[in-house]
Amino acid sequence: MLARGGVRMKSHTTYLWFNTKRRQEIIDITDQVAAEVDGSGVREGMALVSAMHISASVFVNDHESGLWHDILKWLEETVAPWDPSRYRHNETGEDNAAAHLRSLTVGHEVVVPITHGALDLGPWQRIFYGEWDGQRRKRVIVKVMGE
Amino acid sequence: MLARGGVRMKSHTTYLWFNTKRRQEIIDITDQVAAEVDGSGVREGMALVSAMHISASVFVNDHESGLWHDILKWLEETVAPWDPSRYRHNETGEDNAAAHLRSLTVGHEVVVPITHGALDLGPWQRIFYGEWDGQRRKRVIVKVMGE
Amino acid sequence: MLARGGVRMKSHTTYLWFNTKRRQEIIDITDQVAAEVDGSGVREGMALVSAMHISASVFVNDHESGLWHDILKWLEETVAPWDPSRYRHNETGEDNAAAHLRSLTVGHEVVVPITHGALDLGPWQRIFYGEWDGQRRKRVIVKVMGE
Repeated sequence: MLARGGVRMKSHTTYLWFNTKRRQEIIDITDQVAAEVDGSGVREGMALVSAMHISASVFVNDHESGLWHDILKWLEETVAPWDPSRYRHNETGEDNAAAHLRSLTVGHEVVVPITHGALDLGPWQRIFYGEWDGQRRKRVIVKVMGE
Repeated sequence: MLARGGVRMKSHTTYLWFNTKRRQEIIDITDQVAAEVDGSGVREGMALVSAMHISASVFVNDHESGLWHDILKWLEETVAPWDPSRYRHNETGEDNAAAHLRSLTVGHEVVVPITHGALDLGPWQRIFYGEWDGQRRKRVIVKVMGE
Repeated sequence: MLARGGVRMKSHTTYLWFNTKRRQEIIDITDQVAAEVDGSGVREGMALVSAMHISASVFVNDHESGLWHDILKWLEETVAPWDPSRYRHNETGEDNAAAHLRSLTVGHEVVVPITHGALDLGPWQRIFYGEWDGQRRKRVIVKVMGE
């Protein structure tokens, strides 16, 4: 257990940019988030890591390429098939309604804990950017807050 | 990049009330959340926007009525059909087990970043209240925290 | 409405340990989280409650055993069947790819509000640890932050 009090708060904000080659792609961003936490000077607090787009996700899971394959297959076969003809959103000229539903399912942000000045993740936890409609410039905000 | 330190923290709490005409409904609450951020005096921080019910969601997505139709259809056909006979929860006299499962899938809260005194959302991001079992008074807490 | 400013922030961190008898299990941890909030001395703020594993969830929902049964059934039949032969991740020698997909769907963390020194939950909201691959020691971090 760890308790502190009576100190002043700090915040730190940065933006990570992505432009994926494929339309769907999973990118490990843990090291980039850890570097921002390190640079923030925050010892105890939280980092919000949040996609700034409605067709992308940020999530915590496993750094294992077989699983990434499983996730992309599961998003297509179980969560929301890409097939644009299924969705009314695509009558607007878009074809990415499925990417929106995938973002809703997996979520667009995570809040990760900071303890003793570092990301406090479990042994296998890594932070990922999930691009569900890529091949263009998109970004993620990292906002660190604490003491 | 933006880093600040050595200032004192502020918090601000409010509750938004809803009573939808339909049982399922999607409501854009971005302007209400933005007004609370504005009133809080917080320049750098986070806002927690969280449904106080287990049959509702708060999520970030697109302000587009075709997509809202797609989301409601997807919740019924893919995520969790309403049909009360499928669920043991409904033996308690309830008929809303599906609303619980929809809340679990889409999530009941979001944390949104505040930068330079305003919500720091991407170009198409809007905050929504997703009512999955309405026609009665329900609420959402907005808690702003930062410096 | 409630607004405060000009005070110094506090933080408090603890870890809850679990070792479930069954491989899938849902455990109500609200009282444990509430005790940490109480011990933290935080009056206004947020608590991050986050699984430190990639095959588990933390979520807010209803304390009702029929619903817990429905959730486990839904995870197996709708979200991601356990059947290891479906997933490439399981070629690594694991058999728990389904647990990862369930964690992605339900989420691995929640952020809950603290108002007037206590968890500010709706009338039926309870906090749960969702074990999707148990029978071994696993843990959840509770990090309280506020003023």
